[in-house]
Amino acid sequence: MKTPAAYNLLKAPSRAPGGVEKEDTESELERIREDLGELQYRLYAENRRSVLVVLQGMDASGKDGLIRRVFSGINPQGVQVHAFKEPTEEELAHDFLWRVHHHTPRTGMIHVFNRSHYEDVLITRVLGLIDEKEAKHRFEAINAFENLLQQAGTTVLKFYLHVSEKEQRERLTERVHDPTKQWKYEAGDEDKAKQWPEYRDVYEDVFRHCSPKSCPWTIVPSDQNWYKAYVVAKTLCQTLQDMDPRFPPTKAEKHKPE
Amino acid sequence: MKTPAAYNLLKAPSRAPGGVEKEDTESELERIREDLGELQYRLYAENRRSVLVVLQGMDASGKDGLIRRVFSGINPQGVQVHAFKEPTEEELAHDFLWRVHHHTPRTGMIHVFNRSHYEDVLITRVLGLIDEKEAKHRFEAINAFENLLQQAGTTVLKFYLHVSEKEQRERLTERVHDPTKQWKYEAGDEDKAKQWPEYRDVYEDVFRHCSPKSCPWTIVPSDQNWYKAYVVAKTLCQTLQDMDPRFPPTKAEKHKPE
Repeated sequence: MKTPAAYNLLKAPSRAPGGVEKEDTESELERIREDLGELQYRLYAENRRSVLVVLQGMDASGKDGLIRRVFSGINPQGVQVHAFKEPTEEELAHDFLWRVHHHTPRTGMIHVFNRSHYEDVLITRVLGLIDEKEAKHRFEAINAFENLLQQAGTTVLKFYLHVSEKEQRERLTERVHDPTKQWKYEAGDEDKAKQWPEYRDVYEDVFRHCSPKSCPWTIVPSDQNWYKAYVVAKTLCQTLQDMDPRFPPTKAEKHKPE
Repeated sequence: MKTPAAYNLLKAPSRAPGGVEKEDTESELERIREDLGELQYRLYAENRRSVLVVLQGMDASGKDGLIRRVFSGINPQGVQVHAFKEPTEEELAHDFLWRVHHHTPRTGMIHVFNRSHYEDVLITRVLGLIDEKEAKHRFEAINAFENLLQQAGTTVLKFYLHVSEKEQRERLTERVHDPTKQWKYEAGDEDKAKQWPEYRDVYEDVFRHCSPKSCPWTIVPSDQNWYKAYVVAKTLCQTLQDMDPRFPPTKAEKHKPE
């Protein structure tokens, strides 16, 4: 299966298009965040639909920073972030979607997955923990799972934070030297940079198999943190505007005699 | 789509075949239960696979009694029963598989669903809560879900406890008069008996759409409680024998140098 051009990570831009200025984009982001706050409030009040934001990206692509930039300031009562780490013994004793299904949003909520069920067809393949056949089964299971969620009123937005091989290497090196970033350093980070091409392969395979029209991936140029946050916030805001959540009638109106 | 003969509830036997005697069958059940205890212990020790028993049947088909007859005496540490009642507000705020997925068995366990995700394509259709299109989506979601479980090492056994229209009517009437059964009586039980043909229709539709070769339904003749328990126990026992769970090597052996 050929990779659609949009999903070719060697060609996909990892930086903002020419002419897009940092300062303008940051003020624009500020404005979008205000809209997001308003839209989230209406979604919560309406209590009929929900949104799931799936964030994936290689190490040092800046998932944590993105969440901070986009969601700070939104009422946390309506937003929940779940970071999926290495699975526990209990989680491994179930099918791979069990732990993520439990954390899908109820009506009215926006949930953010910091890493997700996609790890089970990414790192597992790079480490050789699953074979091609199992990967295929999992792609199908993921498509059915996301379809189930969407049928139930959950809009699923999938973002891949795309950093170039060079940018990733610089960020991982920075973790060694910058005292404010050293806490993120893990043994083996140097090796991770060398795995960029391997991760590119398995990510592109995900994009090929898990991008139905109803649930595509957005490849986010992520070498610059300001631009990445803008793209994600803008996409989420547009989605919520299209969903157009409405304040429900008062209970008094609901129970009014005909 | 034509109903396969085995799934035609007007023709499927609801009683034991001629010549099968109650007394013999009950001693045989006793023997099977001993085997079940031993097999469950091996499944638990092996801790690699699991079994999910899905029990469906019309009202008064005797699901509770069946669970008591088949599973009493098995170590409850390795068996969990989940009865799914009318969904809560929280459960309804998620997709219909959310609440059942949470209760699927981990490795080593046997879980029994007393009613299940199938209610969402049964009573919901009889009450007109979902349309044909939604029912189709749910059939597909159910097939994908059961496939996900089976791929992860969970054998899914689905039993339909088949009582005849006449037997159901008698049992529901008994609830009114028998002081040991009155606690089961619910307002409207009389009407439920009248719905036998409607439930037959939606059950047959389930059998048509959710019976892949890898995960068929067993239609259990259930007018006689002794025979019904025997059929379910026997099928479960045969399944576990085929799975052939093995005691794992001791940890000492595992860590032995090559």
